[in-house]
Amino acid sequence: MWSYAAPLAHMRFVIEEVLDAPAQWRALPAHADLDADTAAQVLEEAAKFAAEVVAPINGSGDLEGCRRQPDGKVTTPAGYREAYRAFVDGGWPALACDPALGGQGLPQLLNAALYEMLAAANHAWSMYPGLLHGAYACLKAHGSEALQAAYLPRVASGEWLATMALTEPQAGSDLGQVRTRGVPQPDGSMKVSGGKIFISGGEHDLTDNIVHLVLLRLEGAPAGSKGLSLALVPKVLPDGSRNAVRCDGIEKKMGIKGSATCVLAFEGAVGWLVGEPGRGLAAMFVMMNSARLSVGLQGLGHLEMAQQNAVAYAHERRQMRAAPAGTAKGEGDDSGADPIALHPAVRRTLWRLRALCEGARVIAYWAAQEIDIAERHPDATARQRAHALAGLLTPVVKAFLTDCGFHGAAAAQQVWGGYGYVHEYGIEQSVRDSRISMIYEGTNEIQAIDLVQRKLRGDGGAAWALLRAELQDEAARCAALPALADFARALREQAAAADDAVAALAAGRPDDPDWPLGVADDLLHGLGHTLLAWAWARSARAALSRAGDAWFDERLAAARFGIDRVLPDAAPRWQRVLARGLALPAAPAAA
Amino acid sequence: MWSYAAPLAHMRFVIEEVLDAPAQWRALPAHADLDADTAAQVLEEAAKFAAEVVAPINGSGDLEGCRRQPDGKVTTPAGYREAYRAFVDGGWPALACDPALGGQGLPQLLNAALYEMLAAANHAWSMYPGLLHGAYACLKAHGSEALQAAYLPRVASGEWLATMALTEPQAGSDLGQVRTRGVPQPDGSMKVSGGKIFISGGEHDLTDNIVHLVLLRLEGAPAGSKGLSLALVPKVLPDGSRNAVRCDGIEKKMGIKGSATCVLAFEGAVGWLVGEPGRGLAAMFVMMNSARLSVGLQGLGHLEMAQQNAVAYAHERRQMRAAPAGTAKGEGDDSGADPIALHPAVRRTLWRLRALCEGARVIAYWAAQEIDIAERHPDATARQRAHALAGLLTPVVKAFLTDCGFHGAAAAQQVWGGYGYVHEYGIEQSVRDSRISMIYEGTNEIQAIDLVQRKLRGDGGAAWALLRAELQDEAARCAALPALADFARALREQAAAADDAVAALAAGRPDDPDWPLGVADDLLHGLGHTLLAWAWARSARAALSRAGDAWFDERLAAARFGIDRVLPDAAPRWQRVLARGLALPAAPAAA
Repeated sequence: MWSYAAPLAHMRFVIEEVLDAPAQWRALPAHADLDADTAAQVLEEAAKFAAEVVAPINGSGDLEGCRRQPDGKVTTPAGYREAYRAFVDGGWPALACDPALGGQGLPQLLNAALYEMLAAANHAWSMYPGLLHGAYACLKAHGSEALQAAYLPRVASGEWLATMALTEPQAGSDLGQVRTRGVPQPDGSMKVSGGKIFISGGEHDLTDNIVHLVLLRLEGAPAGSKGLSLALVPKVLPDGSRNAVRCDGIEKKMGIKGSATCVLAFEGAVGWLVGEPGRGLAAMFVMMNSARLSVGLQGLGHLEMAQQNAVAYAHERRQMRAAPAGTAKGEGDDSGADPIALHPAVRRTLWRLRALCEGARVIAYWAAQEIDIAERHPDATARQRAHALAGLLTPVVKAFLTDCGFHGAAAAQQVWGGYGYVHEYGIEQSVRDSRISMIYEGTNEIQAIDLVQRKLRGDGGAAWALLRAELQDEAARCAALPALADFARALREQAAAADDAVAALAAGRPDDPDWPLGVADDLLHGLGHTLLAWAWARSARAALSRAGDAWFDERLAAARFGIDRVLPDAAPRWQRVLARGLALPAAPAAA
Repeated sequence: MWSYAAPLAHMRFVIEEVLDAPAQWRALPAHADLDADTAAQVLEEAAKFAAEVVAPINGSGDLEGCRRQPDGKVTTPAGYREAYRAFVDGGWPALACDPALGGQGLPQLLNAALYEMLAAANHAWSMYPGLLHGAYACLKAHGSEALQAAYLPRVASGEWLATMALTEPQAGSDLGQVRTRGVPQPDGSMKVSGGKIFISGGEHDLTDNIVHLVLLRLEGAPAGSKGLSLALVPKVLPDGSRNAVRCDGIEKKMGIKGSATCVLAFEGAVGWLVGEPGRGLAAMFVMMNSARLSVGLQGLGHLEMAQQNAVAYAHERRQMRAAPAGTAKGEGDDSGADPIALHPAVRRTLWRLRALCEGARVIAYWAAQEIDIAERHPDATARQRAHALAGLLTPVVKAFLTDCGFHGAAAAQQVWGGYGYVHEYGIEQSVRDSRISMIYEGTNEIQAIDLVQRKLRGDGGAAWALLRAELQDEAARCAALPALADFARALREQAAAADDAVAALAAGRPDDPDWPLGVADDLLHGLGHTLLAWAWARSARAALSRAGDAWFDERLAAARFGIDRVLPDAAPRWQRVLARGLALPAAPAAA
């Protein structure tokens, strides 16, 4: 009843026609030989893997969950180990890794499409390989030669999985409070002691070794975030002995039950410094930015999964007759039953989900494309521009798309009626699983603060100027096409509202320094809608060039639905950001 | 970490000061002797029961769930049976029942406050007694004298629990498709055969007998909803023998796991007609209207539970320093840690939840108050007016408050960060439990159709004229107080937008008869916000008369936050309703 078919036609439409990525690959020496057909073949294989290997163990993995033995060993649900083995054998972990390290050297854009599929098919399972990429990037950027030699190829290939061991009970959003300690040893290693919580994949049975990247404080380091360093602590030491890291428990969670969320105890475990002492947060941020894009892709995956299944179910399920011309009927109609897809309340929901999903994909893939340019363009100016854009897009992709994923899944759940609340129909699991993406890798509120403080105010508006120029250019391209005049108008309105909001933030409120933080969340959602307007405009323009083909006409219809019926939701966001006279009251009293 | 204390001060504020209910009781002969202090004592006792008996088994009941034995017997979680026994012994089921039937004859308004508490403390447990009231109302209105004598006192007292057995696999929203059959017998009974699904409390171990009210088709009756009749089918027959009704399964659900959701098989079970043949839906609707108000109260309960625990947690949990004057800091700040209640992103969420919760309570209690007037006022005109208002309010209370309950719980979940996703902190269960209220007793989309078709278009606008007059009167009362000018303005704007929308609906679109159904959901949410504006205005007015007392000042602050920061969310709702040029596209194609 619940199935996943990767939306390959949509993915190709975005990659090839909306974003024109193949032309861009030709400008990047690393991808100069890649063409659209080759990329499409990769996605087809990924789609098979997602649908045939990973999706079938999604529901069963949720029911079974992970199990921890008294000795600290953790068992993943049935089929997880075999699926992971097939993933490694297929070379998927190294898709976007350096060929010198055994990788395939493909663009992050294709890796993004792969992870959209994996998260849609089985979010919990995708958590295990999902953390590899950040660890790979972090070790590649900051690891010593010796650490790279010992760990990087095996992390790239997926032979060993990795964790990001940041959180402690008192240190969640506030990593400056981390207490885990590292005591340097004469041989250049360190002894690591402390407790970490919420460590995804902290222990499992998928790989023989697990590479923990642990945020800690070296002996004698100052308090706060400037005293933090990063260490690599393997589960199994190079001599084959077990390191002193133990799983003390796994959390009972709302969802992603197949992903082991571990309490880890380090008791004098052997580790090695990654990067400079006191620069642990900086080294970790390499992982976090990569991870935040991946989390945004989870939101997109859930949105896709929810909408494709809701549309399919709505065409099968029959309840009541849809209103015939000249009448309008409500519940309890006598005259037979039509597919609920014909009922206006359901049609409205389905179109809304379609529009959001198609727009969100363009935004997420664009961020991945800019990361490719930032990493691989031969021209430094082009790299810097792309880096700034990707940095600005990252918190919006993470927070806005995960918000759309969860709320989209919850909206889709209505389509199933009572069946939507029952496990076997799948959607209730999607609602539960998608909820975590709004929390981890920096809560969505932290993303909004990052957007406002670092990405909009921190650089004097440089990144925003780049984004604004792209919005205005796209509006001008649409304005040149009479059929898309409404897209041009909508996009210009959004861009103008965003521009006003960014200017208001830059000015701040001298009497109320908290003001930007109090409107950060609304600003992020306003900007998310602005990016949707841009995405729909670009999609509409690409679809218009194929007008007359029913599939492309439906893309145009979805984009127009977005402009007409979804975009009004931006208005209260901008209104709250721009109502600068409003002060946020002090905290309400506890009862 | 998760606890419930009934918001007694808030409840008294709404009942006594905002709605001035005690004055109204004096106009109702049945309640003429009831005063505010007596009512408050009842609520205090109810609060103790909710906090001490029911709340402590909420989390454990979720983990344990219900169990079905191979013979069809169903076991509820540990403590459920004892709690239910205490509920019956305390006389709670009969709180609002007729004293002639052993009831206490108190207003529905107090019963509403009781069920807000029960749903907040333990939604799953509250499902069992929650269905009593509809069955009581239905039997009292439509049962034969013999059925009333045999069943009504025991249903009123809660000695026997009841079900609403409506849904079948092919008949969810579309009850006209019900296939369960009743074959009349010479002795005046009937033999009932068929299968029902999603029957809350269809089987359990709380009471010795269960009274099923079954929607079915008498032999020879026409197809469709006009052929439906209602029958009472007890689990145990008057002679003490077991009737032919069996629980064939219980659903594995997203939440309310302590509530047994049953598949029931009737195999020639003995039943008796309730009401006239072919008038089953009408008899059932007596239950459904009562049930829909109760479901709205579940939304309110979840909102209260989420906000009171979020506020408490935010005052305990310390992360990062809140921005000192003249600076503004983001994640990873070094300089110590403040309670997160001080951080603007959290403050915004807490105030939003407070404002929604306090406004929602006024709306729900007002609906209950109108039901009391409709049932018990000596003047027929007053009864009719109240009946029309209650009918108009019911679908909004059901849909809008359950929407606020679920989305409010999900918003509160962010306050806990990663802990919010873990079972022991409670909020994730509240998110799961609250989700069902948007689906059952008529999905929220069905409520929107009911609002548009029956309540706004069906009566030529009479009910809306009554509500509009109340909105305008309240705006005028606020306008007379300079401190509340912004409330008067906001309420007038909302009332005007609602009036435009209702007029647009009445006019319809001749070229697109579906149009009202396509905007019904937006209209319901627009009207929900309009009622919030009214509730905040009334609360502000009541609080203003006590200005200078910190508790009342905080009510005014919450109401003002609602007007300033929540009410903008109505704008896109009205915009979509009033954009009459937009046609809803045909159903999107399945992949």
